[in-house]
Amino acid sequence: MFESANLEHKVDKAAYKCEVANLREALLHAQLELKDRGRFPVLILIAGVEGAGKGETVNLLNEWMDSRYISTSVFFEPTEEESERPAAWRFWRALPPKGRIGVFFGAWHTMPVIQRVTGEISEGEFARQISEIVRLEKMLCDEGVLLLKYWFHLSKPQQKRRFRELEKNPLTRWRVTEREWEYFKSYAKFIRVCEPFLRKTSMGEAPWIVIPAAEPRYRALTVGRHLLAAISDRLKDGTAQTLPVHTPPLALPVDQLNPLRALKLDQPMTKDRYKTELAKWQGRLNAAARDPRFQALAVVAVFEGNDAAGKGGALRRVTGALDARSYQSFPVAAPTEEERAQPYLWRFWRQLPRRGRFAFFDRSWYGRVLVERVEKFCAEADWHRAYVEINDFEQALARHHMVVVKFWLAISKEEQLRRFQLRAKTAFKQFKITKEDWRNRKQWDAYEHAVCDMVDHTSTSLAPWTLVEANNKYHARIKVLRTLCLAVEAALGTVKPPRKK
Amino acid sequence: MFESANLEHKVDKAAYKCEVANLREALLHAQLELKDRGRFPVLILIAGVEGAGKGETVNLLNEWMDSRYISTSVFFEPTEEESERPAAWRFWRALPPKGRIGVFFGAWHTMPVIQRVTGEISEGEFARQISEIVRLEKMLCDEGVLLLKYWFHLSKPQQKRRFRELEKNPLTRWRVTEREWEYFKSYAKFIRVCEPFLRKTSMGEAPWIVIPAAEPRYRALTVGRHLLAAISDRLKDGTAQTLPVHTPPLALPVDQLNPLRALKLDQPMTKDRYKTELAKWQGRLNAAARDPRFQALAVVAVFEGNDAAGKGGALRRVTGALDARSYQSFPVAAPTEEERAQPYLWRFWRQLPRRGRFAFFDRSWYGRVLVERVEKFCAEADWHRAYVEINDFEQALARHHMVVVKFWLAISKEEQLRRFQLRAKTAFKQFKITKEDWRNRKQWDAYEHAVCDMVDHTSTSLAPWTLVEANNKYHARIKVLRTLCLAVEAALGTVKPPRKK
Repeated sequence: MFESANLEHKVDKAAYKCEVANLREALLHAQLELKDRGRFPVLILIAGVEGAGKGETVNLLNEWMDSRYISTSVFFEPTEEESERPAAWRFWRALPPKGRIGVFFGAWHTMPVIQRVTGEISEGEFARQISEIVRLEKMLCDEGVLLLKYWFHLSKPQQKRRFRELEKNPLTRWRVTEREWEYFKSYAKFIRVCEPFLRKTSMGEAPWIVIPAAEPRYRALTVGRHLLAAISDRLKDGTAQTLPVHTPPLALPVDQLNPLRALKLDQPMTKDRYKTELAKWQGRLNAAARDPRFQALAVVAVFEGNDAAGKGGALRRVTGALDARSYQSFPVAAPTEEERAQPYLWRFWRQLPRRGRFAFFDRSWYGRVLVERVEKFCAEADWHRAYVEINDFEQALARHHMVVVKFWLAISKEEQLRRFQLRAKTAFKQFKITKEDWRNRKQWDAYEHAVCDMVDHTSTSLAPWTLVEANNKYHARIKVLRTLCLAVEAALGTVKPPRKK
Repeated sequence: MFESANLEHKVDKAAYKCEVANLREALLHAQLELKDRGRFPVLILIAGVEGAGKGETVNLLNEWMDSRYISTSVFFEPTEEESERPAAWRFWRALPPKGRIGVFFGAWHTMPVIQRVTGEISEGEFARQISEIVRLEKMLCDEGVLLLKYWFHLSKPQQKRRFRELEKNPLTRWRVTEREWEYFKSYAKFIRVCEPFLRKTSMGEAPWIVIPAAEPRYRALTVGRHLLAAISDRLKDGTAQTLPVHTPPLALPVDQLNPLRALKLDQPMTKDRYKTELAKWQGRLNAAARDPRFQALAVVAVFEGNDAAGKGGALRRVTGALDARSYQSFPVAAPTEEERAQPYLWRFWRQLPRRGRFAFFDRSWYGRVLVERVEKFCAEADWHRAYVEINDFEQALARHHMVVVKFWLAISKEEQLRRFQLRAKTAFKQFKITKEDWRNRKQWDAYEHAVCDMVDHTSTSLAPWTLVEANNKYHARIKVLRTLCLAVEAALGTVKPPRKK
């Protein structure tokens, strides 16, 4: 895979100078067009062997283009804040929005490769991480990101020569330390790991582009020209090949039974019983949240349900048990402009809680497969793949010791009508009922269908849905509180309290 | 993921009878249209828990439709012939052609799941196999296969009830053995493995469709309706969503240097030296092929090169060293009708050699990224993804102890002209030179570019390209023979001779 890169390429100084002037102009122009027409982000990954001029290239890109619209992110060891979230969090935080260019220096590729070279992770764990990378990159491409992955390559003799040159020059001597020579010694091992890695993480939409990196001018022109071609191609929307996307239909229910209809929505609970239960579960939840082991966990809770099903009321009974400093609630409405410039999961990734904290989502990423599906805000293929993407997202949370609980609060159509009318009549409740609520109600069957598909496709053992019979608010609130509390208590048993710093 | 399937669905007899009549007619009609318009194959995977009526459903599908155009394949333990090829070989053999329906009963999903449940394979190996499945299925979908994956589900009580019922009936008692009750005992374990498996092998284009399988009529209607909807949707080409496929460009060389131009095409070798070397390497190759350990290996050799570069002559010097019963040569021309009805790799999979044998391909699957690319016989996105698919294919061979050697025989443009003219002049060589050769010659630069990209993207440590300087035929033949021989000798060191049966 490094045949071309192993050759001794050369570009002479005069030719370089001449071309760079044109290239810079063209790049600037492309960048401007990207910014103004702004329909996709460009994400550049910079990776490769040591001493291959990765840093120089990043500097050059910033010099050549308008650096106001390029953001460069360097990923070293995770910070404390980063390590409290799933590994992908810091990458999500740094994603460029549509119309912008983001450069990731050492992204999700660095750690798996290094850890495999040093033997820290097994072949199997390496395979698992590779498949996560492939899924992440596929999602980014499907969401429209122009993903350009540059792999800077040096042959072994080229690497040796490079280190020697740096050492000779007093100005660059500091760049070659023992660590660099260590890398050199394990060159063969490194390539043995990288070759299958590059192969397995290359896809048609996001192949690795191997950059022959030994000669600075050749390297710079290769990257510059490729970047220009890739952005220009994509800007000419007409040239994008359109292949048909065949998403097979989901299975339709044959009878009238489905997980929602199987519920007995009217569940008994008296006010007295409710008060007793509320006190009991709020107490237990509070105790669980104060358990020292809880500092090794976090909770992500999703509240979805029919309009007027009582999501807000249930949520308040939960937060009522908690220290206000330990949780945050996110009411999810239509995405902001900033959010629309990102993959749909972006605005949820950014809200993930730190260790020892709760995040409550009043509506959530499930909008993709509910309202966006029913109202046709996205293509069919988009919400179909969302099931897979959402599952991947939640598994990443669960793997990171985040307790994921998801509630669907279900009321009957009659009960909803009763509550709507009540809201309309009661002055201080009128704000809660809008035209949109009535409009959604007309789509009752379509939503019911979408909810059942959602439950069938995204209820997993690590992130299960809890369907809550909510005609009786008392019952609903207690079920929510109890489910959440039991999930947290169970998770406490799986972790140790973190050491105090 | 089994919420709907765990419910007690029911369809009454009368309603069933009435619907089945219509459904059968519609299915037959769809099948006929599929056969006549024939632009895609339908591949149905049948999987799921024991006792869920998988066999009954397959029988029903054959009964409902025209069974001449359905082929059902059941995969038990691999046969001797199958186990001599990579695991995927038997599935490739059974793929339905365009216009036909294939039913796979226990396909590539069965073994990984069972082996993971029994603990035969580790979590890591399981992850590796899952990623292979995903890549295989993605390739099939990209090649236009309508892939329908039905997962037949029973809840634990449903499975118990089903076994009890079968036991009670004297006619079906034989179907419940100790093995079935063993499965029942490990139900929870099975589901614990299956759930993440289904999740990780579901994609937008090929999701698992969970079939509630407890009630035979409900089960049958669910599958029948879904199959009908899926085929009908796809037949209406207009409804296929077309999303843009953005394949970023490959990197272009900046200078004139590339792996082909870096070669010194004129290599010295006298006729005398050639004779000595030929005898030496033919002898060594012959000895290697007669080594008992060679019965644990096989060889797949690819001969590609410029027109008139001497592929045939080199190949004859190789086969000259071998027992005629131990090898087969495949001259690859335009695909036959049967081959065009399959994914492009199909015709190569079917020719894979058994253990202890050689397969020589005179031109090969690389046509996809050479002639099909240059002549625009396929879309750009198609040959881009072919690099990934070809690498996966060759890795599967290499993992199965097949020695993969690939030769590109390179001659200069002048040398080619000389040879063309010689062929045109010599009566018994005229058949070797056609208009097409002259046409290809006009595309010299485009082919050179395609060859360099091919080498850069598909030369891997397990399946490396050998570039052969072929202006001097003697040199070329010896380099081919020596490379092949050394590769076989090296591989002998990695295996033990198989036990005699």
